[in-house]
Amino acid sequence: MSDDSSSRIVAELRRWIAAASPGSRLPSTRSLVARYQASPVTVQKVLRVLATEGLVETRPGVGTFVRSVGVARPPDYSWQTAALRAPHVPIRSVSAALQSTTSDVVAFHSGYPARELLPERLVRTALARAARSDAALARPPVDGLPELQAWFAHELRADTPAGVTAPTARDVVVLPGSQSGLSSVFRALAGAGQPVIMESPTYWGAIRAAAQSGVRVVPVPTGPEGPDPEELARAFSDTGARTFYAQPNYANPTGAQWSPERGRKILDVVRAHGAFLIEDDWAHDFGITTVPTPLAAQDDSGHVVYLRSLTKSVSPAIRVAAVVARGPSRARILADRAAESMYVSGLLQAAALDVVTQPGWRTHLRALRGHLRERRDLLLASLREQAPWAHVAHVPRGGLNLWARLPDGTDVPRLIRDCAAAGVTIAPGAEWFPAEPTSPFVRLNFAGPDPSAFPDAVRTLADTFDALAA
Amino acid sequence: MSDDSSSRIVAELRRWIAAASPGSRLPSTRSLVARYQASPVTVQKVLRVLATEGLVETRPGVGTFVRSVGVARPPDYSWQTAALRAPHVPIRSVSAALQSTTSDVVAFHSGYPARELLPERLVRTALARAARSDAALARPPVDGLPELQAWFAHELRADTPAGVTAPTARDVVVLPGSQSGLSSVFRALAGAGQPVIMESPTYWGAIRAAAQSGVRVVPVPTGPEGPDPEELARAFSDTGARTFYAQPNYANPTGAQWSPERGRKILDVVRAHGAFLIEDDWAHDFGITTVPTPLAAQDDSGHVVYLRSLTKSVSPAIRVAAVVARGPSRARILADRAAESMYVSGLLQAAALDVVTQPGWRTHLRALRGHLRERRDLLLASLREQAPWAHVAHVPRGGLNLWARLPDGTDVPRLIRDCAAAGVTIAPGAEWFPAEPTSPFVRLNFAGPDPSAFPDAVRTLADTFDALAA
Repeated sequence: MSDDSSSRIVAELRRWIAAASPGSRLPSTRSLVARYQASPVTVQKVLRVLATEGLVETRPGVGTFVRSVGVARPPDYSWQTAALRAPHVPIRSVSAALQSTTSDVVAFHSGYPARELLPERLVRTALARAARSDAALARPPVDGLPELQAWFAHELRADTPAGVTAPTARDVVVLPGSQSGLSSVFRALAGAGQPVIMESPTYWGAIRAAAQSGVRVVPVPTGPEGPDPEELARAFSDTGARTFYAQPNYANPTGAQWSPERGRKILDVVRAHGAFLIEDDWAHDFGITTVPTPLAAQDDSGHVVYLRSLTKSVSPAIRVAAVVARGPSRARILADRAAESMYVSGLLQAAALDVVTQPGWRTHLRALRGHLRERRDLLLASLREQAPWAHVAHVPRGGLNLWARLPDGTDVPRLIRDCAAAGVTIAPGAEWFPAEPTSPFVRLNFAGPDPSAFPDAVRTLADTFDALAA
Repeated sequence: MSDDSSSRIVAELRRWIAAASPGSRLPSTRSLVARYQASPVTVQKVLRVLATEGLVETRPGVGTFVRSVGVARPPDYSWQTAALRAPHVPIRSVSAALQSTTSDVVAFHSGYPARELLPERLVRTALARAARSDAALARPPVDGLPELQAWFAHELRADTPAGVTAPTARDVVVLPGSQSGLSSVFRALAGAGQPVIMESPTYWGAIRAAAQSGVRVVPVPTGPEGPDPEELARAFSDTGARTFYAQPNYANPTGAQWSPERGRKILDVVRAHGAFLIEDDWAHDFGITTVPTPLAAQDDSGHVVYLRSLTKSVSPAIRVAAVVARGPSRARILADRAAESMYVSGLLQAAALDVVTQPGWRTHLRALRGHLRERRDLLLASLREQAPWAHVAHVPRGGLNLWARLPDGTDVPRLIRDCAAAGVTIAPGAEWFPAEPTSPFVRLNFAGPDPSAFPDAVRTLADTFDALAA
């Protein structure tokens, strides 16, 4: 059959469809064959053309129907407003740190390291191996693969000083990412309506998990040295809080690393108030000029609940993290996890364990230190040279970010919008404050793709800033 | 150096350790070499032997220390009792349906199909392909891979009658398993303290997710035909509930499938009360003598929030599910998911999509129907012949389970314990009741491994029952 013939039938059927009401059934293929003296192949082709145009819809075994496109009543979901009641938590858009961009943009906004900083060969090999193993079809225990639990415990044990009882595999609960752990820990250790102390600024994901779980956030200010122990003690006394969430090593966003002395003092305050320190060791694999020692390694009294993730350092596809908790707190957390997601994919657990137990993992981490250092220093130098008004008070000894204070009065949302239009994406500092930001800040990730573009991107930032100020 | 020499040093150091206090540092390798006139290799070997015995612990770069095994004070976590406060939810042990067993046991207790019922070849191929793809290293959008969203929407679209606007990819949120979806839906659509109506009996995981999210469960009785629409209407009126959770196709545990007529009536009640029906289509791939049609396909007014999982039918390692919701309810659910876990592993999403779009998937599902039918009928026949006191009121037309009522007065926990001791595991019916069980029930999964063992296992059940009654 010629194209002409099918075009003619398409045109005739278009007229028929325009006159028909939505949902009408088209004549069967057999009767169209008869009516237009065409082959079944041509009729099928015609129907595909009409379906591609969105005019008809074929339900296999039932027939072809006129679609209600264009003439459909617009849906009305307004009844849901009453059913849903007012939100417990303001509905916020996706964080800047999670947004995807195209490859022609210089991305300072992301919360993740670029792909070239991941152990790609180890990850692919581990996943391929896991795909051939039992893990591809089996269901692991609720609290994790025993070997992976043991690995997380062993990592802490290596930093545990003599005289402190190190955690064991039985203290570990494997998680599908540390974000899930944050939600569970806030629900399990505090619960709706209860106060949870947090550094300000602190990780936006923790602020969001706290809001969603209904706990009441109590902010304490933090700086390059971490929070002031006396201020923390006041917050405990004033609010009766029993939980303090913090990132003692390379805090996101400030990059702060608590000194051993500061860590001990804070742990003393936490113990004195019969409280939990939720230690989020998010950047354990991202030391640059220091090696992070978890505070959890100092504690065998169950006061530190320790979160460690492999998602950022291994691969965003291998969402595996763990919480280490001792005493009844672990049972509470495990009960929340079981109700929340039952277990973590054994395939991802097996692949994660494979990656971190290869000799290549240590080699990768050593090389990563160098890469992060070069990127950090390049971005710092570009800022100092071209945007000296962006003040980085603390050069982070680890992590992925610079935390830059802008001159008072800077219109940060507008700066970020204009920079994005010029191909440079930046995260607004306000997302990291549980309350009002104290000054205009931005967070700049130096682990994004292609560091050679950093100087030009900072030039763009500077030009945009100048245009705003003019 | 001879073995004798190292044994002698081991023995001497054992005595030294027994006299030392825990945490003491051993002399350095160099001084041990000098003291025992041994080579460094021998000393290293000695230290490895002592470490294997658990007597010492080496911290690289720091030294070797006497371990506190045996002499350590028992940990005291009692302070946590005050910090944790009374639990919101009773802490329950892991459900019977999640427990792992050894291979010499006949497992009627599980909630999952046996490995021989999974599409093993498709799963392994898909995972291997995903491991080589971008998905192994990339971060997908928060609401899911667009192609997988489109697949879930398309599945519903195929059942959507003319005149009803089918859902699109934009209505879908991909989940890391449907259990996570239940928690999010309860939190997002109802919230702590709000009533949620549930069938009784119903899926234990939903009961647990509801408890953990703090909603108030309102049970309505259900039977082989589903719940009575008038009873449901009363529950809505009495409690002001705006949410009803149900499994209209092959309900777990009863196997009930609502007739189209019953489904329409229930949907009318839901709409009349301005409420949501959370349709948990857990057994969509497990039809035996019927094909399930989701109620969600009948609704374009946003009243049905639809949950579909691939974990049970594809592989327990591929924890991927989706919720389809329209209107503001979707935004609420997505906000909860973003706070809870940010995104689902793109590797698992890519692998799931790969499996369900292969021609082999349809072939697998057709074969699965036959296997499930044979197993169901074999277990039914065994029960009727050997344990006629176990009354299966409804032969399920799909799903994985038989729901058997036992004679009144049966000591179910003891029966289950004695059966387990005899190598047959069974799940107690009480777990499926949000309130008191109305009668003694057990749930028997006919999708476990090795159906040829079913008759003997039922014989064991019957003998155990007789021994109890004697």
